[in-house]
Amino acid sequence: MSETFFVLPESAHNQLVVAAYQKRGFSAAEAAAGARLCAAATHHGVRTHNAIKALHLDHLFGSEAGGCQPNVQVEERPSRFSAAKVWNANRQLGQATAYAAIEEAMRLADEHGIGMVSVDNAFHYLWGGGYVMEAAKRGYVAYTNCTAALAEVVPFMGRTPTLGTNPHSWGLPTTDALGWPIVIDWATSVVSMGRVQQFAREGQKLPPQAAVDANGQPTDDPTQAKALLPFGAHKGYGLSLINELIAGFIGGSLPTIRNRWTEVGEGEKGTCCFFFQVWHADALNAGNFARGRTQSQNVKAVLDDLLGHGNENCMLPGQIEAEAAARSAAHGGLLFSEAEINGLNDLATEAGHPTLNPAQLKSVSV
Amino acid sequence: MSETFFVLPESAHNQLVVAAYQKRGFSAAEAAAGARLCAAATHHGVRTHNAIKALHLDHLFGSEAGGCQPNVQVEERPSRFSAAKVWNANRQLGQATAYAAIEEAMRLADEHGIGMVSVDNAFHYLWGGGYVMEAAKRGYVAYTNCTAALAEVVPFMGRTPTLGTNPHSWGLPTTDALGWPIVIDWATSVVSMGRVQQFAREGQKLPPQAAVDANGQPTDDPTQAKALLPFGAHKGYGLSLINELIAGFIGGSLPTIRNRWTEVGEGEKGTCCFFFQVWHADALNAGNFARGRTQSQNVKAVLDDLLGHGNENCMLPGQIEAEAAARSAAHGGLLFSEAEINGLNDLATEAGHPTLNPAQLKSVSV
Repeated sequence: MSETFFVLPESAHNQLVVAAYQKRGFSAAEAAAGARLCAAATHHGVRTHNAIKALHLDHLFGSEAGGCQPNVQVEERPSRFSAAKVWNANRQLGQATAYAAIEEAMRLADEHGIGMVSVDNAFHYLWGGGYVMEAAKRGYVAYTNCTAALAEVVPFMGRTPTLGTNPHSWGLPTTDALGWPIVIDWATSVVSMGRVQQFAREGQKLPPQAAVDANGQPTDDPTQAKALLPFGAHKGYGLSLINELIAGFIGGSLPTIRNRWTEVGEGEKGTCCFFFQVWHADALNAGNFARGRTQSQNVKAVLDDLLGHGNENCMLPGQIEAEAAARSAAHGGLLFSEAEINGLNDLATEAGHPTLNPAQLKSVSV
Repeated sequence: MSETFFVLPESAHNQLVVAAYQKRGFSAAEAAAGARLCAAATHHGVRTHNAIKALHLDHLFGSEAGGCQPNVQVEERPSRFSAAKVWNANRQLGQATAYAAIEEAMRLADEHGIGMVSVDNAFHYLWGGGYVMEAAKRGYVAYTNCTAALAEVVPFMGRTPTLGTNPHSWGLPTTDALGWPIVIDWATSVVSMGRVQQFAREGQKLPPQAAVDANGQPTDDPTQAKALLPFGAHKGYGLSLINELIAGFIGGSLPTIRNRWTEVGEGEKGTCCFFFQVWHADALNAGNFARGRTQSQNVKAVLDDLLGHGNENCMLPGQIEAEAAARSAAHGGLLFSEAEINGLNDLATEAGHPTLNPAQLKSVSV
């Protein structure tokens, strides 16, 4: 079953998205970072994190709601440590903060072998996988987590949502070994609230142990689902807790008031936190690989062993994204469905930017 | 339903375990580290990682099998990085290597805010939770992972076990906030092989999606289970991959020959790798907590919010271990069942060390 997509040159996409952000008051640099991340998501086939979603998030929680402040500077906080930086993002557009933070973490890793950047008062960075993928493509191991916008997930053995969907994202520099970086990137809930709504629209049942109803009881009926459950019982719960605790050490406050600005009282905080870490691949290398392999040859041998022995049909995390990127490159642009082109045109209209004419775009069947 | 335990003073435990390790050729320092970790496990109620298990592992994979070499020195490998160290453990007893590595990572974190220690040619460290708990009790955030001894876990969508049970362990410095450190510590398989065997002995069914049979098909019959599955489908698979990839970058070789010494050919490697990381809590602190809270008060407020609102019955990771530790402290020693005392006496006999007389030990009902 193939679907028709229109091929939008990345430059045209970026001009439109930059205009949309600038219309809302964001600086040229912030808008460029916003466009860059959406372009990377679409290039890699991550349709849940395209420009339409990004600008919608800004509408819901961002520059209109007060969670995000256009045209601000990140402030570096005092720290006595050489390999660890702490930033106050001042609610800057998350993509701008996150690209700067992963860049700084790479610089620290070049100098110290490892670097970390902790960010207080952050606004949604959209797609954590994009930042660690960028670092992994440049040869680094990278990790990020953040506290998700809203508390929608019930702790293991609990009944009320007090955790975010708190994602974890890892990038591994496997381009020499595989042709593309392994990127492990997922939320700690079984599914997202958006996916629950999609299941409800399509009349489908939820996976088991993915959501609870108003009484805190597990339900597979998406129309009854009021909150989400962590994946993997106590294990996914632990992973979600890590994000909340790291945020708690950085400067994040109560999860249940996060981004619920009417409930954030005087002196309280409703912002998210980000955490970034990058390691130089040389900083791991003990210099003694079997059979005289190089580091990359060794990683390749490990992967060949893992996916051999009858496991040839297994996928690696990041493989789907790498295949989508190859497709985008082959078609010479970003692939959008007709509905997505319409969504982009709504943004263009809002910004007073020329709209896209699908008839003038190359279309492909994928 | 209560069980009777004998209270063994920690010093008597340690003397016996040191004797058992020294009988097998380990140095006094190595034996002391081995005893220390087993004592910590038993003190915290972690009965799966006591001295009997430790010496049994050494028997199966260690000083008799060639996976572990008694009385060796760890060699620091050349590195140009200040915050990242790389060690060749020369197959040293894992507990000795791991205590030294977490200590070094804390020293690096004091200096740089963050430190990491990557270890090649390592031998099983038994209980990753013990090392990160030690660091967390001293005020640090700590993380470790390792490649598990044997490839027993089938990759997501695969049929052959090519992954270890590859555990992840995190320690968080929550003693000021809670009275004890949060420790998140688990394998990336749903259950361990030991647990499958226990289910078989007890005639119980396995949890769903925990194991596969000889044809690679999921089974809940423990007698048919030939290999394990990762928890949380592709998410746990990704977490398990991380350990294999980090090991691949350090110096670990093919997962399927690991610790299978008859299959490790000339120039190949069959050893495990360890990875340790420690962050100073001050290196995360953005210095701007809501309502003038201190960092610890803020973490406490976050935890109170998470476990409020009807979630009061939820447990935190590390809570069971903290309760067991309080019980051990109240009874003034390490708690062992009669069967465990018998197991310790087998070790004592092997080492020519005086055996324990249960009649002379205080007994308690727990």
